[in-house]
Amino acid sequence: MQRLVHTPEGVRDIYGEEYAKKLTVEDTIRQVFHSYGYRDIQTPTFEFFDVFSREIGTKPSKDLYKFFDKEGNTLVLRPDFTPSIARCAAKYFAEEKEPLRFCYQGNAFSNTSDLQGKLKEMTQMGVELIGDASIEADAEMAAIMVESLLKTGLSEFQVSIGEVEYYKGLCEEAGLSEEMELALREYISSKNYFGAEDFLIRKNVPEGFRSILLRSADLFGGAEILKEAGHSVSNARSLNAIERLKKIYEALCVYGVEKYISFDLGMLSKYKYYTGVIVRAYTYGAGDAIMTGGRYDRLLGHFGKEKPAVGFAIAIDSLMEALSRGRITLIAPPKPSVVFWRPDTFREALAEAGRRRKRGEYVALVPEGDR
Amino acid sequence: MQRLVHTPEGVRDIYGEEYAKKLTVEDTIRQVFHSYGYRDIQTPTFEFFDVFSREIGTKPSKDLYKFFDKEGNTLVLRPDFTPSIARCAAKYFAEEKEPLRFCYQGNAFSNTSDLQGKLKEMTQMGVELIGDASIEADAEMAAIMVESLLKTGLSEFQVSIGEVEYYKGLCEEAGLSEEMELALREYISSKNYFGAEDFLIRKNVPEGFRSILLRSADLFGGAEILKEAGHSVSNARSLNAIERLKKIYEALCVYGVEKYISFDLGMLSKYKYYTGVIVRAYTYGAGDAIMTGGRYDRLLGHFGKEKPAVGFAIAIDSLMEALSRGRITLIAPPKPSVVFWRPDTFREALAEAGRRRKRGEYVALVPEGDR
Repeated sequence: MQRLVHTPEGVRDIYGEEYAKKLTVEDTIRQVFHSYGYRDIQTPTFEFFDVFSREIGTKPSKDLYKFFDKEGNTLVLRPDFTPSIARCAAKYFAEEKEPLRFCYQGNAFSNTSDLQGKLKEMTQMGVELIGDASIEADAEMAAIMVESLLKTGLSEFQVSIGEVEYYKGLCEEAGLSEEMELALREYISSKNYFGAEDFLIRKNVPEGFRSILLRSADLFGGAEILKEAGHSVSNARSLNAIERLKKIYEALCVYGVEKYISFDLGMLSKYKYYTGVIVRAYTYGAGDAIMTGGRYDRLLGHFGKEKPAVGFAIAIDSLMEALSRGRITLIAPPKPSVVFWRPDTFREALAEAGRRRKRGEYVALVPEGDR
Repeated sequence: MQRLVHTPEGVRDIYGEEYAKKLTVEDTIRQVFHSYGYRDIQTPTFEFFDVFSREIGTKPSKDLYKFFDKEGNTLVLRPDFTPSIARCAAKYFAEEKEPLRFCYQGNAFSNTSDLQGKLKEMTQMGVELIGDASIEADAEMAAIMVESLLKTGLSEFQVSIGEVEYYKGLCEEAGLSEEMELALREYISSKNYFGAEDFLIRKNVPEGFRSILLRSADLFGGAEILKEAGHSVSNARSLNAIERLKKIYEALCVYGVEKYISFDLGMLSKYKYYTGVIVRAYTYGAGDAIMTGGRYDRLLGHFGKEKPAVGFAIAIDSLMEALSRGRITLIAPPKPSVVFWRPDTFREALAEAGRRRKRGEYVALVPEGDR
């Protein structure tokens, strides 16, 4: 019996004021997405395993909830919306010439076994801009991120922008294979710089490249670091990446959101499908990034229709935590008022409730004994 | 590759105009729920198997999507929201004196293998009124069902009300065990009246009771059938059930919705947790009921806190089908307009888009080459 009332670890019930506020925040953000021309899409809660396989490059298989349908196919609870939306775009919109703008809201699932109390079912909202390879499309992502956060009432936050091509160019220049690049990425992501240096020495990477690779992990700051980053490399991939970031910054100045923007050339993503710019938003009171995203120009190709694309997702539960710790006042819909009734006054009570409901009020009818 | 773009059978992508309309209908219905004092709740997408076990009386185990967590517990994708909300109410609101009013919106899952193209992931919205045993609470359900449908634009529909106690009283009077009652229910639910009669003969049920039991399956119509139903039985359970239905009808007349109401004493539910009134709504263009619900006074007891309760759920996908076949005009948010830009006009294009967005318009920026 004790066991029966509990939810599985990592998932929870949400109700009352807390859920009302979460729904209000979701509505606010959806309104921002719509204003930029994004239209709602909903994909299934579970997909064939292959949609989230290793080649696609989302979460590792061990972190997926897997089960079978009656035909014996392996199904997966979506860990992430982007591959599903890429699949859907490739299937139904292959011939569409104009850019596609999708936005979504729903829950994603992560079957992790870590004991840090992390949620295994998380609400995500996000946008995907498919079929637009421009720098301005990248800038639109960061601009929507800033506007979404401002509209929820948050003012102290930072949108960080990186470029996977900068790091890939460095690795290529230093003669690292793709496998070595991935291994090094693991060391750097976990901030194990000694391990990273050891690894590079073992692989006979010359000292000059070693220090550039390690230093890139520290290249973080305002637009001025782009100049510094440009000076320390000579390969075309990395230089093109820096050029692109500079132009994105210019576009973000046109948007007028530059004060929320920083650059982080050491930023690496766990999602392997990113091919260009990657973005994250951070604020106080949430350990991890509250928003993550990037450009994924080759993901649709996996589903049979190559198209450039860029998008981002908001971790709504983390955002709610940040808003609550930041004491941001959220206006939730009013609590219902109560009209009491007895069997002999039901008719009048219902009439009174009806009048108030017509005025847009929320009214609950309650038997008088329950007072 | 061909396989990769497909969704598993029975689940689907929904986008564009179709999804915009579905979201509009959901908003309309949520507004009705709120006006009656219901507050949103969200329970996890999956629960421990026991929450939907045989004793609880929801879907049969073979129709559940089951999988394991890392600790080896069996988890289930919810087939139905009511047991989850009952669990949550028993856990967090055991001491609450006033009635609880919850409403929800989300997807439920059914792992059926039938080939009729039925959806395996279905959107449901519903309400649960917990802690109110009154006839007026039962009537509120039917009244909200009627108002929800009218607000979506539907006008031709019927809310049917039955009472499980009427049938249970008959079975008891005829000397049927609970097992025999369940077996007979199977025959009657599948409209196999010959099978039902054979079964009753085999079980040596006297002719008089046989004909009453079989005739009860046909007792369907306006409030006048309640009188007829009352004449043909003499056991207290069935008579009390009829009395309650008569009083519910009176309350529904106070609501002024009686023209949408009919009674069906042969109505039986697949969900075994119902203990009193059961309700269903039907309309043209949807094969099955578009709404189902009932009173479940013993369900919370399974979770450690006995409380009377009543609720109903709307099958949103079936409702959308009915609205579309009935050619009901649904007003969806407008399609975004487009502002084209070239690198040398980006600044002005963005300013123009910004002005329109400020006016509440939905505007997409599109590079001119994509025209």
